[in-house]
Amino acid sequence: MVHNRQMRLGAFLMGVGHHAAGWLHPSVDPRALTELRHYVHLAQVAEAAKFDAIFFADNVAMFGRPSELGALAAPLYYYEPLSLLAAIAPQTERIGLIATVSATYLPPYHLARKFASLDHLSGGRAGWNCVTSGSDLEAHNFGLDHQLEHAHRYARAGEYVEVVKALWNSWEEGALLADQAARRFYDPARVHPIDHDGQFFKVAGPLQLDRTPQGHPVLVQAGSSDDGIALAAATAELVFTAQQSREDAIAFRSRLRATATANGRDPDELLVLPGIMPFVAETREEAQRLHDELLALVDPRLGIGFVSGLMGVDLSQYPLDGPLPEPASTEGWQSRQKLLVDTARAEGLSIRQLIARIITARGHKTIVGTPGEIADLLEDWFVSGAADGFNIMPPILPQGLEAFADLVVPELRRRGLFRTEYAGRTLRDHLGLPLPHAPALAAAAE
Amino acid sequence: MVHNRQMRLGAFLMGVGHHAAGWLHPSVDPRALTELRHYVHLAQVAEAAKFDAIFFADNVAMFGRPSELGALAAPLYYYEPLSLLAAIAPQTERIGLIATVSATYLPPYHLARKFASLDHLSGGRAGWNCVTSGSDLEAHNFGLDHQLEHAHRYARAGEYVEVVKALWNSWEEGALLADQAARRFYDPARVHPIDHDGQFFKVAGPLQLDRTPQGHPVLVQAGSSDDGIALAAATAELVFTAQQSREDAIAFRSRLRATATANGRDPDELLVLPGIMPFVAETREEAQRLHDELLALVDPRLGIGFVSGLMGVDLSQYPLDGPLPEPASTEGWQSRQKLLVDTARAEGLSIRQLIARIITARGHKTIVGTPGEIADLLEDWFVSGAADGFNIMPPILPQGLEAFADLVVPELRRRGLFRTEYAGRTLRDHLGLPLPHAPALAAAAE
Repeated sequence: MVHNRQMRLGAFLMGVGHHAAGWLHPSVDPRALTELRHYVHLAQVAEAAKFDAIFFADNVAMFGRPSELGALAAPLYYYEPLSLLAAIAPQTERIGLIATVSATYLPPYHLARKFASLDHLSGGRAGWNCVTSGSDLEAHNFGLDHQLEHAHRYARAGEYVEVVKALWNSWEEGALLADQAARRFYDPARVHPIDHDGQFFKVAGPLQLDRTPQGHPVLVQAGSSDDGIALAAATAELVFTAQQSREDAIAFRSRLRATATANGRDPDELLVLPGIMPFVAETREEAQRLHDELLALVDPRLGIGFVSGLMGVDLSQYPLDGPLPEPASTEGWQSRQKLLVDTARAEGLSIRQLIARIITARGHKTIVGTPGEIADLLEDWFVSGAADGFNIMPPILPQGLEAFADLVVPELRRRGLFRTEYAGRTLRDHLGLPLPHAPALAAAAE
Repeated sequence: MVHNRQMRLGAFLMGVGHHAAGWLHPSVDPRALTELRHYVHLAQVAEAAKFDAIFFADNVAMFGRPSELGALAAPLYYYEPLSLLAAIAPQTERIGLIATVSATYLPPYHLARKFASLDHLSGGRAGWNCVTSGSDLEAHNFGLDHQLEHAHRYARAGEYVEVVKALWNSWEEGALLADQAARRFYDPARVHPIDHDGQFFKVAGPLQLDRTPQGHPVLVQAGSSDDGIALAAATAELVFTAQQSREDAIAFRSRLRATATANGRDPDELLVLPGIMPFVAETREEAQRLHDELLALVDPRLGIGFVSGLMGVDLSQYPLDGPLPEPASTEGWQSRQKLLVDTARAEGLSIRQLIARIITARGHKTIVGTPGEIADLLEDWFVSGAADGFNIMPPILPQGLEAFADLVVPELRRRGLFRTEYAGRTLRDHLGLPLPHAPALAAAAE
């Protein structure tokens, strides 16, 4: 069967793998996470498989103060992701380049300029995953004692996105002339200061570089809390999410699409990609072996630390085989906390069982199986409206990405679910997203 | 004659050339300033000639509100320079990569992380030119009505540099272990929070990536005001400066070295590179022709605008052939204003004459001549203690850089003044600067 609708695939790259113990696996070279060539290789593998984009998450702090426990965890956010993508851009040709940058601690003018630079440098392949910083550890690197309060952070992020988009729109299409005869580098009638003066930001603009190949970089979001959904439905074009079941994923995507529609948007211009951690091999036994080897490498203290952080409760004070206590209210990752508690309650998991479940993929869906079994699940979620595609989170890198590209992608192609060649050159082309309209008339009428 | 002391050369790259009318010259493709391949080509030309580094200036605003006059000037600061250098890094192997980033509007944690990323990505070739933002146009993009006051800006910059260096020092050499057997990604005893709590900044640290190949990126400064000299003498390893005469350059370098010595520093670890705009060709006539062609392309209104901006006085209100009026006191580029006024006074220049002098190279030294004549001047300044080398500012690009590399560099080599091959791999290697000491014992003793 050939589908008209095509699946979108992101390669979510993180150090030497997403698995909490990935760096400890004997097949992995842990030092690769500090090497540019490792990331370039990953990007090239993903591009050869015709993924829509590679994607880097981010965080602006070490994972905890230096400690023996901290030293058990590989640093997942080593390179600053925009620098890394700029270095990867000239070594790839088509694949989209999505970086997470928090709206909390970087002035919006800087962010707009950096992503516009990346979009120009890459010929229209940039995407910005807009997040807010949700940890005190990050706040401590930016002059604050505590993170900003959750709702405030999102209200501020909403205005931030508005400023960034206005800056991206400050040069109309074609405003850069470079016309020696007319002695005009640009057309002053088509370059507009934004003169934004809002609750949180005051920014004059215009941007110092012209409209980018994509009009503006693709807007991505990853927050799944109520505040996150409201912001995504208002502004995002691509949403990354963690979903454990097909039904929850359908409900999440439906809610997002309905909210976007209520905002006057076309819901097909808002793509939802749940994260998927695939353990894939020619046989299910081989796939399960890698899964089990990695789980055996997880130090229980690391799992307790990770889940305690999300819960806002020190779980080392509770019996490992007892039930999960009530979570503390948090100003941090609200949606991930809810997912954790709901999963434990629904399945009656002990703390130990919850850790085993969650530590593998930090709440994202894990699948263990043959290429056909993995493709079955992806197809089922895709066809039933649970997803527009998936953000693939290999447990170890580069092996997990290579395995997915070699084994699962051909199977998706046989089913008519995934491209065999790029049809366009930009990330918007790959995703089927429209160019944002240039507000030429509105601005000219000011 | 062979000199033991070797000249340092920076390639100061700016759009399609430093000359105010460079983009209008018929031999120039003005649209190249928006194209990555243009900058990659320039970096490769400079590397083939064994320059120490390429260097990008920066500014975080358009040069004025959009206007017909503004459209006469090419945008000199198009790409965000760190993104540009990250894209150039993998397409070069040895040449140093220096970017200007203002300390005024970017939190120091971000800056430290970005430059550490570039130093890792490039195998130890990063340099940070620390400036403060000196224009209201920039302030307006960051929530302020006016730029920060000059002395305050520099006091803040001093603490900023201290924070950035502390972050770069937060991982000791060898602290990243990636040791699977010991299950330690890093050694917690060798990674140190900085817990900085100062007048302007509060930053916990440590940085989230390990000590860089250069220990820390090379620290560059370009301010030549009293405040700028004090900051450079305290912290800089390389200083870019604008000097019109050999004697002034000798005095400037001596003062800087004396102040560094008074600070307990080795003055040979503080290199001074005046900017030089060379018009070079096989014959002097040909060189002069390019100079004159470019000068003829300068719109007088642009010159008046540029000089008015530096003076803080609207010169369009004064007769062009009359004397320069008194400047307004400024919180902006103090040292450049002084250079302007001193030059006009010393030589009795009219406003029109001053514009012709200054518009070519924005106050930097211009030389027109044959390869031998250019080399004579560089050798004279170098040997007499006016400079440790030069920051070469080609009037048009790529032609001006290619001409310097093809004509002047071989002449400098014949005189034993400049390398024929790189001796090392890092920017510190090229410049002969030591690795900064890792404050291991001090930190451990806390």
